[in-house]
Amino acid sequence: MRAEVIGIGTEILLGQIANTNARWISERLAGIGVDVLHHQAVGDNVERIADAVRLALSRADVVIATGGLGPTQDDVTREALARVAGVPLERWPELEERLRARWAATGREMPASNLVQADVPRGARVIEPKRGTAPGLVLELEGRRVYALPGVPAEMEEMMEGTVLPELAALAGPAALVSRTFRCVGIPESRVAELLDDLFRAGTNPTVAFLAGGGEVQVRLTAKAGSREEAEGLLAPVAEEVRVRLGDVVYGEGETSLEEVVVRLLTEARRTLATAESVTGGGLGARITSVPGASAVFLGAAVTYDVAAKRTVLGVPGTVLEREGPVSRDCAAAMAAGARALFGADLAVALTGAAGPEPHGGAEPGLVWVALEAEGVRHQRSLRWPGDRSFVRRLAEQAALDLVRRHLLGLPLPG
Amino acid sequence: MRAEVIGIGTEILLGQIANTNARWISERLAGIGVDVLHHQAVGDNVERIADAVRLALSRADVVIATGGLGPTQDDVTREALARVAGVPLERWPELEERLRARWAATGREMPASNLVQADVPRGARVIEPKRGTAPGLVLELEGRRVYALPGVPAEMEEMMEGTVLPELAALAGPAALVSRTFRCVGIPESRVAELLDDLFRAGTNPTVAFLAGGGEVQVRLTAKAGSREEAEGLLAPVAEEVRVRLGDVVYGEGETSLEEVVVRLLTEARRTLATAESVTGGGLGARITSVPGASAVFLGAAVTYDVAAKRTVLGVPGTVLEREGPVSRDCAAAMAAGARALFGADLAVALTGAAGPEPHGGAEPGLVWVALEAEGVRHQRSLRWPGDRSFVRRLAEQAALDLVRRHLLGLPLPG
Repeated sequence: MRAEVIGIGTEILLGQIANTNARWISERLAGIGVDVLHHQAVGDNVERIADAVRLALSRADVVIATGGLGPTQDDVTREALARVAGVPLERWPELEERLRARWAATGREMPASNLVQADVPRGARVIEPKRGTAPGLVLELEGRRVYALPGVPAEMEEMMEGTVLPELAALAGPAALVSRTFRCVGIPESRVAELLDDLFRAGTNPTVAFLAGGGEVQVRLTAKAGSREEAEGLLAPVAEEVRVRLGDVVYGEGETSLEEVVVRLLTEARRTLATAESVTGGGLGARITSVPGASAVFLGAAVTYDVAAKRTVLGVPGTVLEREGPVSRDCAAAMAAGARALFGADLAVALTGAAGPEPHGGAEPGLVWVALEAEGVRHQRSLRWPGDRSFVRRLAEQAALDLVRRHLLGLPLPG
Repeated sequence: MRAEVIGIGTEILLGQIANTNARWISERLAGIGVDVLHHQAVGDNVERIADAVRLALSRADVVIATGGLGPTQDDVTREALARVAGVPLERWPELEERLRARWAATGREMPASNLVQADVPRGARVIEPKRGTAPGLVLELEGRRVYALPGVPAEMEEMMEGTVLPELAALAGPAALVSRTFRCVGIPESRVAELLDDLFRAGTNPTVAFLAGGGEVQVRLTAKAGSREEAEGLLAPVAEEVRVRLGDVVYGEGETSLEEVVVRLLTEARRTLATAESVTGGGLGARITSVPGASAVFLGAAVTYDVAAKRTVLGVPGTVLEREGPVSRDCAAAMAAGARALFGADLAVALTGAAGPEPHGGAEPGLVWVALEAEGVRHQRSLRWPGDRSFVRRLAEQAALDLVRRHLLGLPLPG
């Protein structure tokens, strides 16, 4: 079964709101094995809404539209649907009654305009609203089905859960879609793609998709079958193969963030962490402390942005700063050692680099040194990835978090 | 001029991500008076992408597509555009060169698959990426224009700001739409709305709009007229009136950020700043150092997340920590004094609080103390705004930055 999602509302086209309803609906449809091949968004215009619905009906079995069912002049979805179906709008007495009763309950007088919410295209079915006042509408057109739902997310979700999804699940027969997402750090997207190339090409079921951003790569596997068990059966061996091929660059699955993994590993190992930051200016500490419970394992950060502060606060030898410069292996190592001593932490990780756009401390933009110090461990590595300032900083944070992760897991540390 | 926005990526149709690029692009297009009548989203499928572009070209003057320009097998936007234009893909030596150079700079071997990012439909123009590695593409088709931009928001936004918006503004001819945005901090949206209520009601031209978020309120005035001069003439008197009514809560205009204003004021005053952070974990320093040139005025941050570190690193008296607790006026004041001494800075600002979800140091979630110390100035204030963890942290950063701003401008400091 193929579905198409239409977002109705000029506020979407003006960019005043994101069409999050489309994301929510698509995710739920995927969950019951319904394919979504297109999204559309149109403004509050009868003709354009009608055209969008016609287009969707030409290529999908089910159309789910959200928005334009309210009481104001710009809520014209009812009219557009009547036009597509070639039928008049009819005012349902029972809906009018319910509206009047609802307003009476508030003790306020109902603006007459509200009565349009009792108008229904002839032959349509109504989904009673549990929240809000706008009923949902269901039309059957040449064996295809159109659902029109309110744009208010809570009202839309309630009708999806209560009516639309159960009906579609029944229509679709037993079907299930199961996904797994592996999150990778320290490997370029193109390298991930190479490692999984044959699976990607073979992969119709389960499918393999890549998503890169924020200094990491996500690999998503999605299997589809008649039942959840069957889909999981199809997914398991491929997921295992992917996991093996990617190896230890996989830091987690699903929605887990790298900082969450680091905080969890520190907590499990009962180890404390401190950071020394220059290029990131505190961004590493900010990410670690964004995780609830970080206070049990994160002691603090020495952000020594100024060169002199590297000496006075972290005890980086003046000779290192003069000979090697503030963006150097020795400076990073001394910063890590200094932070570990300053906070009395089990582990310390340090970052120093040139974020750009200008060179810094004799280093070209994009050069970053990362150092880890723990009992019996002193490791340093450099990254060089010319990019814009925020990207260089993000990559630096990723490298530092990954160094801590790999150390706590006893994995080889990248040189 | 009419534009249409197409989001490309199966992850959008699976509901794994919301198509936030469409919202961002639409908002910017509205800002330069370009109408957006439709959004579409399609998966990583050559034929469906080509159909979507053809449909968009049939009803819009400009088509902006995002996604599908990466190096992996599912990035097929280049191919789809070539198909729509009826031209072959050609590998540009200079783009290949740039890719190889970029990889060489990282010291890693470039997977051959990356070279597809050097493929360009014959006759297309290229937008050089400042971030990332994927070039944007520009095609002219029967007097209409197609822009293909990367799906990674930061890369897309950079090309929109740097190339697409300026080009479209020029095409749109004498801009009929002129906007000014005032950015306010330290005042609730409802209070801003009160102050400007009559203008808001009167305001058809220029219109007055409010946008709250990230611990600040933006007031956007938009005037529409036949010529830019005319629109500016309509805007000027209202803008002046708004500016007067809002007074010193306006920290800047347009895209200026509060951290940029603080760095600029510090630079002009030739003063240095250090921070002491607990609740924000380094987020304040990260924001300040996100501004190019911050190194001239920002010395560093002492992130004393651990209670003991407040004593050992910043010298907060044990008696204060025991009697008043780590989230208190005296602790914040001592942290500011400690940071100023530690870094030898002219100014220091400190943040300590309970971000939640749990109480911290005897303080309820949402309570934050902010302290400023400068020569002859010791000021503290508290905020209480129960919200989610990241919102409390953001508000704390805003309060600290605003305290520095007001001090440097000689404005009264909020109690």
